[in-house]
Amino acid sequence: MGGVQSFREMCDRTKNPNVRMSLPAVCVVWQTAMIILHGVFIRYDEESDAHWVEHRDHENLTDIQNDFYFRYPSFQDVHVMIFVGFGFLMTFLKRYSFGGVGFNFLIAAFGLQWALLMQGWFHSLDYTDGKIKIGVESLINADFCVAGCLIAYGALLGKVSPVQLMVLTLFGITLFAVEEFIILNLIHARDAGGSMVIHTFGGYYGLAISWMLYRPNLDQSSRLHGSVYHSDVFAMIGTLFLWMFWPSFNSAITDHGDGQHRAAINTYLALAATVLTTFAVSSVFQKHGKLDMVHIQNSTLAGGVAVGTAAEFMLMPYGSLIVGFCCGILSTLGYIYITPFMEKYMKIQDTCGIHNLHAMPGVIGGIVGAITAAAASESVYGKQGLINTFDFTGAFKDMVPTKQGGHQAGGLCVAICFGIGGGLIVGAILRLPIWGDPADDNCFDDEPYWELPEDEESIPPILHYNNHMRGKDVADTHFTMEPDARSRS
Amino acid sequence: MGGVQSFREMCDRTKNPNVRMSLPAVCVVWQTAMIILHGVFIRYDEESDAHWVEHRDHENLTDIQNDFYFRYPSFQDVHVMIFVGFGFLMTFLKRYSFGGVGFNFLIAAFGLQWALLMQGWFHSLDYTDGKIKIGVESLINADFCVAGCLIAYGALLGKVSPVQLMVLTLFGITLFAVEEFIILNLIHARDAGGSMVIHTFGGYYGLAISWMLYRPNLDQSSRLHGSVYHSDVFAMIGTLFLWMFWPSFNSAITDHGDGQHRAAINTYLALAATVLTTFAVSSVFQKHGKLDMVHIQNSTLAGGVAVGTAAEFMLMPYGSLIVGFCCGILSTLGYIYITPFMEKYMKIQDTCGIHNLHAMPGVIGGIVGAITAAAASESVYGKQGLINTFDFTGAFKDMVPTKQGGHQAGGLCVAICFGIGGGLIVGAILRLPIWGDPADDNCFDDEPYWELPEDEESIPPILHYNNHMRGKDVADTHFTMEPDARSRS
Amino acid sequence: MGGVQSFREMCDRTKNPNVRMSLPAVCVVWQTAMIILHGVFIRYDEESDAHWVEHRDHENLTDIQNDFYFRYPSFQDVHVMIFVGFGFLMTFLKRYSFGGVGFNFLIAAFGLQWALLMQGWFHSLDYTDGKIKIGVESLINADFCVAGCLIAYGALLGKVSPVQLMVLTLFGITLFAVEEFIILNLIHARDAGGSMVIHTFGGYYGLAISWMLYRPNLDQSSRLHGSVYHSDVFAMIGTLFLWMFWPSFNSAITDHGDGQHRAAINTYLALAATVLTTFAVSSVFQKHGKLDMVHIQNSTLAGGVAVGTAAEFMLMPYGSLIVGFCCGILSTLGYIYITPFMEKYMKIQDTCGIHNLHAMPGVIGGIVGAITAAAASESVYGKQGLINTFDFTGAFKDMVPTKQGGHQAGGLCVAICFGIGGGLIVGAILRLPIWGDPADDNCFDDEPYWELPEDEESIPPILHYNNHMRGKDVADTHFTMEPDARSRS
Repeated sequence: MGGVQSFREMCDRTKNPNVRMSLPAVCVVWQTAMIILHGVFIRYDEESDAHWVEHRDHENLTDIQNDFYFRYPSFQDVHVMIFVGFGFLMTFLKRYSFGGVGFNFLIAAFGLQWALLMQGWFHSLDYTDGKIKIGVESLINADFCVAGCLIAYGALLGKVSPVQLMVLTLFGITLFAVEEFIILNLIHARDAGGSMVIHTFGGYYGLAISWMLYRPNLDQSSRLHGSVYHSDVFAMIGTLFLWMFWPSFNSAITDHGDGQHRAAINTYLALAATVLTTFAVSSVFQKHGKLDMVHIQNSTLAGGVAVGTAAEFMLMPYGSLIVGFCCGILSTLGYIYITPFMEKYMKIQDTCGIHNLHAMPGVIGGIVGAITAAAASESVYGKQGLINTFDFTGAFKDMVPTKQGGHQAGGLCVAICFGIGGGLIVGAILRLPIWGDPADDNCFDDEPYWELPEDEESIPPILHYNNHMRGKDVADTHFTMEPDARSRS
Repeated sequence: MGGVQSFREMCDRTKNPNVRMSLPAVCVVWQTAMIILHGVFIRYDEESDAHWVEHRDHENLTDIQNDFYFRYPSFQDVHVMIFVGFGFLMTFLKRYSFGGVGFNFLIAAFGLQWALLMQGWFHSLDYTDGKIKIGVESLINADFCVAGCLIAYGALLGKVSPVQLMVLTLFGITLFAVEEFIILNLIHARDAGGSMVIHTFGGYYGLAISWMLYRPNLDQSSRLHGSVYHSDVFAMIGTLFLWMFWPSFNSAITDHGDGQHRAAINTYLALAATVLTTFAVSSVFQKHGKLDMVHIQNSTLAGGVAVGTAAEFMLMPYGSLIVGFCCGILSTLGYIYITPFMEKYMKIQDTCGIHNLHAMPGVIGGIVGAITAAAASESVYGKQGLINTFDFTGAFKDMVPTKQGGHQAGGLCVAICFGIGGGLIVGAILRLPIWGDPADDNCFDDEPYWELPEDEESIPPILHYNNHMRGKDVADTHFTMEPDARSRS
Repeated sequence: MGGVQSFREMCDRTKNPNVRMSLPAVCVVWQTAMIILHGVFIRYDEESDAHWVEHRDHENLTDIQNDFYFRYPSFQDVHVMIFVGFGFLMTFLKRYSFGGVGFNFLIAAFGLQWALLMQGWFHSLDYTDGKIKIGVESLINADFCVAGCLIAYGALLGKVSPVQLMVLTLFGITLFAVEEFIILNLIHARDAGGSMVIHTFGGYYGLAISWMLYRPNLDQSSRLHGSVYHSDVFAMIGTLFLWMFWPSFNSAITDHGDGQHRAAINTYLALAATVLTTFAVSSVFQKHGKLDMVHIQNSTLAGGVAVGTAAEFMLMPYGSLIVGFCCGILSTLGYIYITPFMEKYMKIQDTCGIHNLHAMPGVIGGIVGAITAAAASESVYGKQGLINTFDFTGAFKDMVPTKQGGHQAGGLCVAICFGIGGGLIVGAILRLPIWGDPADDNCFDDEPYWELPEDEESIPPILHYNNHMRGKDVADTHFTMEPDARSRS
């Protein structure tokens, strides 16, 4: 710990958030690398290649049985969750909406390209020609993989530079792919909605990085560490698109037929229950029973996380409701008690509260999955249904549900370890004083990284803030003198 | 009438909008009841159960013929309409955006659980084991059922407490399920898009409640009874998602194949025509020809409501355009003339103008449906097409189109009666002085029910309002002294 | 040129933006014409008609093979792009958000009706009965057709009246349908995502009109020619929905099976690469490396445009990335250098920068398509795959890839010519002093065409602007005196 501490001090030099060289360099170099690697490794799979028509006729299929029609609607929903859902959920800060939605856009667009490669090497490598073959399911998995890094970004929102986020994403995707391979293929755990591989991993990855990047003087930015009325409404766009499309998230890569159908139903119900208990807890813990938008924006989603692993199982509608019920309570209590506790005593500053929305519900989801799997029986699933649902085929054809439950629990442990371990290492890298992160009094502020329109630049800087009336005059005068320094053309 | 009046007075006591006990209690108790009832009654249907694989092989089907693939994309579109469409349409008020989108979220999440049960008992009860079997079509129907209550909320926006909304929803869903059973099953009317069962019922239900909850001194909140520039833009998010996805709404539960296909086309066309006549009437009735955002946000949707019943019939593209054409004019005229008239002379305060957007177009939709059904012929539909479209099977296999037209008209009457009758009863219940509704000078204000961010709390209260310059100083000073009382962590 | 100049001067009379007679008249007359023409010409096609059931059984199909299930999810995504994507992308101006999203709504709703007719006459006329038969693919094509006009609107945003936009749309759709027929049917070019027929045509059409409507004194509105913080966030809604659903746009009307599958993958990748190079160039060309929201909102989409033609070909994943890589750079450089150049030296005022987002990437897309087509081979596509992808059937069954490449290039030329030529003619018509366009000091302002809520009407007019502190007092007083002149009821 002392070593970590001195390492931290070593890295605390004067901050310079100018990313004019580093951001373009990273973007161009990495994008070039992506082109080369995709050129060497990635090709269309059987169903997206122009030879499909031969395959189709040979297998006696019809066009509608192309996997595209099973999964493309779900893919588009997941895509919306990644870019609008996560992006707008992070617009809630009064002065960091550009960074919230903009950097989310940047790292997701980079991450998915790298994910296609990393996941491809582990899952879709065609050994006959050494190529990765991609189709619509690969796109969904790439989006899933990116989600882990976006979750981590939630803990760091407003405190890091875009270059740091690119580094976080590069390592995050890499760790994700390895962790996923271990959990799904080696351990043979099932995790359709990614409670473990996405949410638990992403949550602890972000929290560990946040611990490494702890800023003791973050209160210097406290004037910006809150929302305004309309930024909270913007964040509700993110909340609702995540909430509505979560059934697609959890069912996107489950089995054709009843698997996708059931996963959607279970998620739909879990999320509905979460909303009610979130409102209940939010109201009862506030003076006068007033609701807190932070809870409504975030905790209402916890049920979708927690039902991720078990969504494809025969969890039963009431089982989904119970999961959602508990998670709404726990997640809201997390915002009220755990987040302040972690900041004060554990040196973990978690801007969006990802511990309450992803890490903790993800762990619950892993546990629910283990229990549900262990309790599976042929009478409930049917003989073939049991085999299909848990993929008791190939090397695992002698597996039984009770043993599967143990494997699920093992998978959860791997996800936690990868998250924390990976986060500590990546956090150490991100402490290097070369990434252009903002100074403590400049956090939660778009100003270091974005050209801002007039109206916002006129908000007085910190020195004028305590003398607000005067700062206002200065701002107005400035506004009067340069009415249109920035225009679109 | 005198009795109602004195009952009203009896209930007018001092308002206390503190819902700290009642809201959590209602949420937790009702959610617990949902878990128990779902546990007792609700199971997966044949296509979402793990036994599907056996059923599939037995029936010689392929996975893509699971109902999930016929209806899931439409379901997700409907889901967006319910949560983002209705939710954001109600963010237009300058200070009630949290309540608009937030309470919409709450009651929809509760309502859909109760709807699964109520509709299940009437429509999907499996008599062999006494269980309700649910699949994707049940989810769509639950969302539809909720829509009726959200429409009613539109009339009451800003004037009721979340507890009242929960009560409104509980009774509304119950009434809906009974009414729907009578109209669709007993009367055997067709109503794919719910012009009658959803919009007419929901509209009159809300208007009747609003009449019961009439506030003679509502002008005390008139300072908040309007929009600001950006709240109107937020509302356009709701408008557009409703408008775009309405073809999915009207086609979501119609027959596989041509039924869904035709319903989508008809709705697409009707809505397009409505936009043009709405712009026309909005412009011609304003001085200088300026457009009114209220009309654009609402009346442009009337065509989708009015084509709901007939969307699956052979209405013909030009028939859809005519319906849309008329509804755009009528709905916009409704906002200009009928809503003020109803408020002034009929004591109905209709915040969002649901009479013009849902009730009146819903009635038109019922009439259009009756006429179109009565005019159906074998030459237009084909022998089998006629039977399929109007479901002339089982007990109704001797039905003829002209008689069906009469049944449609009967269904419309039932919807109106249930709406008005149910609304009066529920309105009486909601007048009880126990629900925490806001005082007359506190309506259209998020302040009683939400923790608000700094910027908005600094808006001067009513007493300072008439002395605006002074109030402003007070606000600025307050802002200066406590720059960050609320933060996310 | 001199003639054009004098024609311009002839038309510069005093502006009167009152559209109280003209806008309603145009809307009602044209909508009536639509009803009549749809009544005479448009009927359901085989798959949306009630006779489908007979056709289905005759062809031994199942319901899921109705074209509805192949294309409806893509249609809804395209629909979102047209109304929310284009609409919200144009809300970025501080005072023209109503006009951006509202007029987009109006002209899209009109345009799609006219497009169904125009495209129907060219492509779907059933010669046995003289009727146009429409289905879901017709709806997608109508939306595509509208996109061309919405692109053109982007160049003119804030400078034209809604009546001018209706005229622009009427002619634009007409030109589009002719151009599309020439390119796709006569020249037999392939253009699934419309790089040529939609983006190149629409871009040059808008730029040519903008040149004809050049306003030398537009700087009188420069105070309004910029964004505010939240209007930039609103515009990101448009950006992201366009970005996310572009794979659906480019795959919506490609071949069933591998065609749709491959087009979605290629577009997904091209767009991802564009984001990285856009961020890179935006940062490197600004002092301090700050990002410009204009670039992020627009240039990130250029890859989707440029991959439109080739999306259905075997472009290969790395090919898509390369296209996206180049377009992100070129488009952002366009915003930095070309748009100001065009305004200063070429008298083309391009409000949204459609040259950089649509025209230039569209041309690149056409060239990429020509090269990719010319390089196609049986070894890559397979014998049947080559025939299907390039539709080497009927009159074109002897076509070879190299020749197809030439045809593609020919198609691109036709698109450019139609865009520029049509734009000059329509621009001349729009200069007539009868359309109610705003004065030079009233551009980029919702005030001439919309009833505005209180808060925005209190922004001081131009005369008070240079004396800002005083103007502010006036505004505040006004606000105090009439706190609620406008209410919803």
